[in-house]
Amino acid sequence: MQDHLDDVLATVRPLDPIELNLLDAQGCVLVDDITVPLSLPPFDNSSMDGYAVRVTDVAGASEEFPAVLEVVGDVAAGQTDPIAVGPGQAARIMTGAPLPPGAEAVVPVEWTDGGSGEGPVAGMRARSLAPEGAEGHVQVYRPAEERAHVRAKGSDVRSGDRALAAGTVLGPPQIGLLAAIGRGTVRVRPRPRVVVLSTGSELVQPDEQLAPGQIYDSNSFALTAAARDAGAIAYRVGAVADDAETLRATIEDQLVRADLMVTTGGVSVGAYDVVKEALAHVGDEDEPGGGVDFRKLAMQPGKPQGFGSVGPDHTPLLALPGNPVSSYVSFELFVRPAIRTLMGLPDVHRPTVTASLAADKALTSPKGRRQFLRGSHAGGSVTPVGGSGSHLVAALAQANALIVVPEDTESVEPGTEVEVVLLG
Amino acid sequence: MQDHLDDVLATVRPLDPIELNLLDAQGCVLVDDITVPLSLPPFDNSSMDGYAVRVTDVAGASEEFPAVLEVVGDVAAGQTDPIAVGPGQAARIMTGAPLPPGAEAVVPVEWTDGGSGEGPVAGMRARSLAPEGAEGHVQVYRPAEERAHVRAKGSDVRSGDRALAAGTVLGPPQIGLLAAIGRGTVRVRPRPRVVVLSTGSELVQPDEQLAPGQIYDSNSFALTAAARDAGAIAYRVGAVADDAETLRATIEDQLVRADLMVTTGGVSVGAYDVVKEALAHVGDEDEPGGGVDFRKLAMQPGKPQGFGSVGPDHTPLLALPGNPVSSYVSFELFVRPAIRTLMGLPDVHRPTVTASLAADKALTSPKGRRQFLRGSHAGGSVTPVGGSGSHLVAALAQANALIVVPEDTESVEPGTEVEVVLLG
Repeated sequence: MQDHLDDVLATVRPLDPIELNLLDAQGCVLVDDITVPLSLPPFDNSSMDGYAVRVTDVAGASEEFPAVLEVVGDVAAGQTDPIAVGPGQAARIMTGAPLPPGAEAVVPVEWTDGGSGEGPVAGMRARSLAPEGAEGHVQVYRPAEERAHVRAKGSDVRSGDRALAAGTVLGPPQIGLLAAIGRGTVRVRPRPRVVVLSTGSELVQPDEQLAPGQIYDSNSFALTAAARDAGAIAYRVGAVADDAETLRATIEDQLVRADLMVTTGGVSVGAYDVVKEALAHVGDEDEPGGGVDFRKLAMQPGKPQGFGSVGPDHTPLLALPGNPVSSYVSFELFVRPAIRTLMGLPDVHRPTVTASLAADKALTSPKGRRQFLRGSHAGGSVTPVGGSGSHLVAALAQANALIVVPEDTESVEPGTEVEVVLLG
Repeated sequence: MQDHLDDVLATVRPLDPIELNLLDAQGCVLVDDITVPLSLPPFDNSSMDGYAVRVTDVAGASEEFPAVLEVVGDVAAGQTDPIAVGPGQAARIMTGAPLPPGAEAVVPVEWTDGGSGEGPVAGMRARSLAPEGAEGHVQVYRPAEERAHVRAKGSDVRSGDRALAAGTVLGPPQIGLLAAIGRGTVRVRPRPRVVVLSTGSELVQPDEQLAPGQIYDSNSFALTAAARDAGAIAYRVGAVADDAETLRATIEDQLVRADLMVTTGGVSVGAYDVVKEALAHVGDEDEPGGGVDFRKLAMQPGKPQGFGSVGPDHTPLLALPGNPVSSYVSFELFVRPAIRTLMGLPDVHRPTVTASLAADKALTSPKGRRQFLRGSHAGGSVTPVGGSGSHLVAALAQANALIVVPEDTESVEPGTEVEVVLLG
């Protein structure tokens, strides 16, 4: 099993970077170090709504003995040409507005009378309703230290600093930082396009009528959702009947939109195993060929697996078994890490923990095969959900973990610490 | 702060359910219990590629003394009218194919000569290449118990069982189960459409040229990404200048595609605080009005906040402060839970843990305000990243957690256990 995973991860390479608009790059991995082109803030600015003053003018000010200053005007955020503040003067200033020439500090409006002449105020009145606030006089009730309530140019980042390192995954705060330094686009590894295709002549689309011997196609739905969950742009192709020519033609058609192809079914030892027939060397299904290698792995579920490449661009293809639980577990173990490798993500695997087995009786496991049982994990313990049958999709939908039973273990007693793969 | 959150969550109601195609419902919450309409599997079927036999015909079979049976044909998956198996006969059968009439068990092909007459085989040859495999005779080397390698009808779920409970979040395995029981569409609460709008005359779009006094709009990018991350369909509106009429008109325009509106900036005590001016009662910014209530919360960052509803459908609106760190922290604390409430999700809050404070010196925090510092959390300890300044976007991009310092705490010594909100 580990060999197969190693082969997959050694073959799949991160996708070539592309330049994307910032919001299209969410969840993607940065390819280059990003250097800050301008200091943030780009200029000294006020951290409060208040008055820009000279320090000596408000030295010793108190409610009893306020400093009275002439208001020379407003400095609003975005104002490109602020007025100067001379001795005995103040400018009414808004949060984010540039500190005007001559001013040395900002006094919050709550420490002034806001020009009202009637003691401390809670805030300013809107400029549009009370234009007189930008003139007249203001009483200041507290002194201010030099640079008080001033955010210095470059106090966040400086021009030439590294904003983000190559390999960073772009979440909301990283996207915010890139915008803040003026980057509208960014070079990242794109999300891989994954085509999911199920095979089987017994498969019928949901909402249609089942004839005897038929079942509904569920793998293509579950795996398309799982591929999206892993970070991919996933395309679901309806189930393909067990006919090698149809399958080959369908794969060929789909290659144009695939960075990775995933098939389910048709990889075992039956006489109608169409994926193997279509993609392996004719005549000997144990020999690698057609670019796709079919193997039997020492695991349960998921013993038969195919991996290789198809088409002129050697698009990687993983051929998973057809039982729903087998295909889902195989996806988790092999396809998800492949998708995340294509994205260039630093951590491609699901987190694993150890947990105490909560069960009425010992779990049994086939000798020589690593078993992945479905489990419900909570608070340090894990309870098996459903049996080991690889057709038990109802139990799978109740599970949030896989319980790993090693190859050499045939029985696990309740209370034993077991390895658990946490899903979702 | 808690009061404000309570008000938000008491006002925002889960969105009305809609019927969505299965893959469009990924990540959404199921509204009804889903009952299984047909048993799974719908018919007894083979769990292996092999031969369908009668138990008495293979009793005592061994490699030395094989049972030799007449092969009456193939039963492939999806075959709607399988042939019958009489005494002394076997049908070659594929995984998932219906157990044919007369057969009582399946013998895996690996326990037979596959019709070759040359001892045990690893698998069948493809039907298309070796049609003779469906006829002739087969040597069986092991006995089979009744129902061996047969998956019984209804052994996964039975008609009438509850497949999934109302309130279930639809992930890949749940989508797989719904497909398996034939559901092509499902009734869920849709993802909320969230319009994000930043305000400020100083704001310039990334990739454009900054004039003196201007900065780049980053809030609308960070919060649009954060809204998507929370599960919403988010629309980013470019920054709106500090003009009440323009803002009102923009909000009115956007209402048609909004289940929730989020603004940043313009909510404090300045004379150009346009959001407050446009949405609060004219003339008294401390009184609830225009549907939107503006408050000062005992928290840092994020003291000024607005919440209410706008437009004919009473669309909820959260007005966040404009400093980038303030708006992001406010989003995490108020908007994310609101989005998840609209989705009907069972758990609307980020997980919190306790962690040991790793710092060179004590953290200080203003008395009477709950402080949310940015931190880097790993392995049970948390390290503050950057200072408390609400303009420090570079540090925010290095954080993965918020360190919570309670209202009544003014100093936190290194090594103290602190509450930590885990981001992403």
